[in-house]
Amino acid sequence: MEPSAETNNEAAEEQVVTPWEVSGKDGGKIDYDKLIDRFGCQRIDQSLIQRVEHLTSLPAHVFLRRGVFFAHRDFSEILNAYEKGDKFYLYTGRGPSSEALHLGHLIPFMFTKYLQDAFKVPLVIQLTDDEKFLWKNLTVDECRRLARENAKDIIACGFDISKTFIFSDFDFVGGAFYRNMVEVAKRVTYNQAVGIFGFTGEDHIGKVSFPPVQAVPSFPSSFPHLFSGKDNLRCLIPCAIDQDPYFRMTRDVAPKLGYHKPALIESLFFPALQGETGKMSASDPNSAIYVTDSAKDIKNKVNRHAFSGGQDSVEKHRQLGANIEIDIPVKYLSFFLEDDAELEHIKKEYGAGRMLTGEVKQRLVQVLTELVERHRTARANVTDEMVDAFMAVRPLPYMFD
Amino acid sequence: MEPSAETNNEAAEEQVVTPWEVSGKDGGKIDYDKLIDRFGCQRIDQSLIQRVEHLTSLPAHVFLRRGVFFAHRDFSEILNAYEKGDKFYLYTGRGPSSEALHLGHLIPFMFTKYLQDAFKVPLVIQLTDDEKFLWKNLTVDECRRLARENAKDIIACGFDISKTFIFSDFDFVGGAFYRNMVEVAKRVTYNQAVGIFGFTGEDHIGKVSFPPVQAVPSFPSSFPHLFSGKDNLRCLIPCAIDQDPYFRMTRDVAPKLGYHKPALIESLFFPALQGETGKMSASDPNSAIYVTDSAKDIKNKVNRHAFSGGQDSVEKHRQLGANIEIDIPVKYLSFFLEDDAELEHIKKEYGAGRMLTGEVKQRLVQVLTELVERHRTARANVTDEMVDAFMAVRPLPYMFD
Repeated sequence: MEPSAETNNEAAEEQVVTPWEVSGKDGGKIDYDKLIDRFGCQRIDQSLIQRVEHLTSLPAHVFLRRGVFFAHRDFSEILNAYEKGDKFYLYTGRGPSSEALHLGHLIPFMFTKYLQDAFKVPLVIQLTDDEKFLWKNLTVDECRRLARENAKDIIACGFDISKTFIFSDFDFVGGAFYRNMVEVAKRVTYNQAVGIFGFTGEDHIGKVSFPPVQAVPSFPSSFPHLFSGKDNLRCLIPCAIDQDPYFRMTRDVAPKLGYHKPALIESLFFPALQGETGKMSASDPNSAIYVTDSAKDIKNKVNRHAFSGGQDSVEKHRQLGANIEIDIPVKYLSFFLEDDAELEHIKKEYGAGRMLTGEVKQRLVQVLTELVERHRTARANVTDEMVDAFMAVRPLPYMFD
Repeated sequence: MEPSAETNNEAAEEQVVTPWEVSGKDGGKIDYDKLIDRFGCQRIDQSLIQRVEHLTSLPAHVFLRRGVFFAHRDFSEILNAYEKGDKFYLYTGRGPSSEALHLGHLIPFMFTKYLQDAFKVPLVIQLTDDEKFLWKNLTVDECRRLARENAKDIIACGFDISKTFIFSDFDFVGGAFYRNMVEVAKRVTYNQAVGIFGFTGEDHIGKVSFPPVQAVPSFPSSFPHLFSGKDNLRCLIPCAIDQDPYFRMTRDVAPKLGYHKPALIESLFFPALQGETGKMSASDPNSAIYVTDSAKDIKNKVNRHAFSGGQDSVEKHRQLGANIEIDIPVKYLSFFLEDDAELEHIKKEYGAGRMLTGEVKQRLVQVLTELVERHRTARANVTDEMVDAFMAVRPLPYMFD
């Protein structure tokens, strides 16, 4: 996720959101309205959420209700088709650059699991170990090892093995997948790639070669063992909005190859403990809660590092209340506290000064500890054989049931 | 083999030799001395040829004796290692852009067969169907079909199935081969690729992505079914000299990945019937003899189109003799007439005016008809099952015997 030198320089002033760098204007918050404008995607509105609830006969996921997944491309088309009885498939992914995932990494997977369960559709998960090798100072073998380790965390999110295929690029690229990569590459000029991704002449050609690898899981023909003869199947991609450039490129090319443009449903960035100025940083362990953190770690991190919107003294706090717009504990609770009524209650009481920062943090520590504990237990039960089973190139005969 | 717009413009004056364009200065002959200088390879001298004869206990191939393979990189190192008992493997290839091969296409394969027989070493043959898809206006399926058709012509050259693996990129790219592609791509900047290949910003990224595909068959680890555990095995690449840019790049990267630099043995271009101004053109059927040409076709093409160094009238010819330096029948005979004494006799008699153009052409028609007839018979005996067998991903247990 390194920035290129060029985009890094620009970052000093303007907001930068690329697959490798996320930073707000002048180091401030990300302006998501501006991002939607610039990228040309749509905001998810209340009527779309209600439509999802209606079609799935389920309450919308908390990430949808609370605007974590806030933008989309052609999600309505997916729903229109679904309403008529046409299924689709889900595609998401992860670049395996570190052993331990933080909570921000889990968000797309938690949401994708909900979508898989709600719509009863197949899912492909791409582990871009090649991307991480190309952008990071890691060996091929280390990237492949991290891919398998990360697969365990992903499987621990509860995906249905009868509907889910996980693959690593270093293992799976080839055959129909490679042929689609070459089809895409032929239809994107270098200048276009520079416009989309900001590559420079000093970047290595591996970077220039990579975008088609992330593009082609959007096409059903890249998975002949799953979707043979189903070239008309639509694809829905849940991802963080920094991945949008890849799929803008993909959507340009898709019709030229006879496929539907992939639809997208895109999330905000999960904020760092220190405050909302971008994504969390792997290089600062205190900026994030990791799924490997102990209860004690979580308590320490939240109490010491979570940016508070409360006042400096109890007296002032009782008088003025907390600024819940900038308060990280409230923000984190809005991601992970499922009870809408309780969240509203906390926001109201805390905002009015009747609840103290320490109390809110205590509740957050509870919520996160439970979440992390649940994940850790689930992950401990994921065996190497299960990883092999999820990653086996095999048909999924019950994937639409 | 399309030129990029840029190199095309430069071609008006300077000599251009790239994998996609070959043209002499001001449309004239290729200056091979200049090419050797510019590329930085070495000329093959008499002592090197004698060393080959000594090491193989065989007379040197006619293409070696007569300077068709005239340049090399590190071929001496291959011979040094061979002398000490270290074997190597051969790697050559073809871009399958047309159904019928012409004689120029056969040259590297005829020579490679000699090297395989003489040194008793394994051989990998890459069919770059992906390259042809990227550079030509052909579909993926058409390129794959042409790869198989061309494989039949290659097999007809007589390669030993117990020592030869033929693969198409569209089928074989993946696994260890793909991992090596990514390793190479990470070590070549876009600017370097532009310097080597002359890409422009309007070229598609498929072109930029391709060079690593042609690079990695130079590394034994790209073929785990053949060379597992033999990362130290050397590679010798017989090819036409226009492929040198790919392997200059490869030789730069090889030591960084812990491999020997691949050695090269490089040929001249086979001249067009109309004269020595570059390679033959697939768009002009009268510029070349095809392996599908009938005896009558060959007779017509040689008699009507082969550029003659003889004089305008018989009287003048008897008086002045032929200019055998520019005479295409003599040139073709020097490629394909194996009898050194007869070739010398023809050159002497024709150059002195005692032999007429018609007589030389008649001998050439005989030689080519035999060659093409022999090839046609051999190709007719190549079944689809044999193609499958040569292209099967399999170990070759007797490859060094």
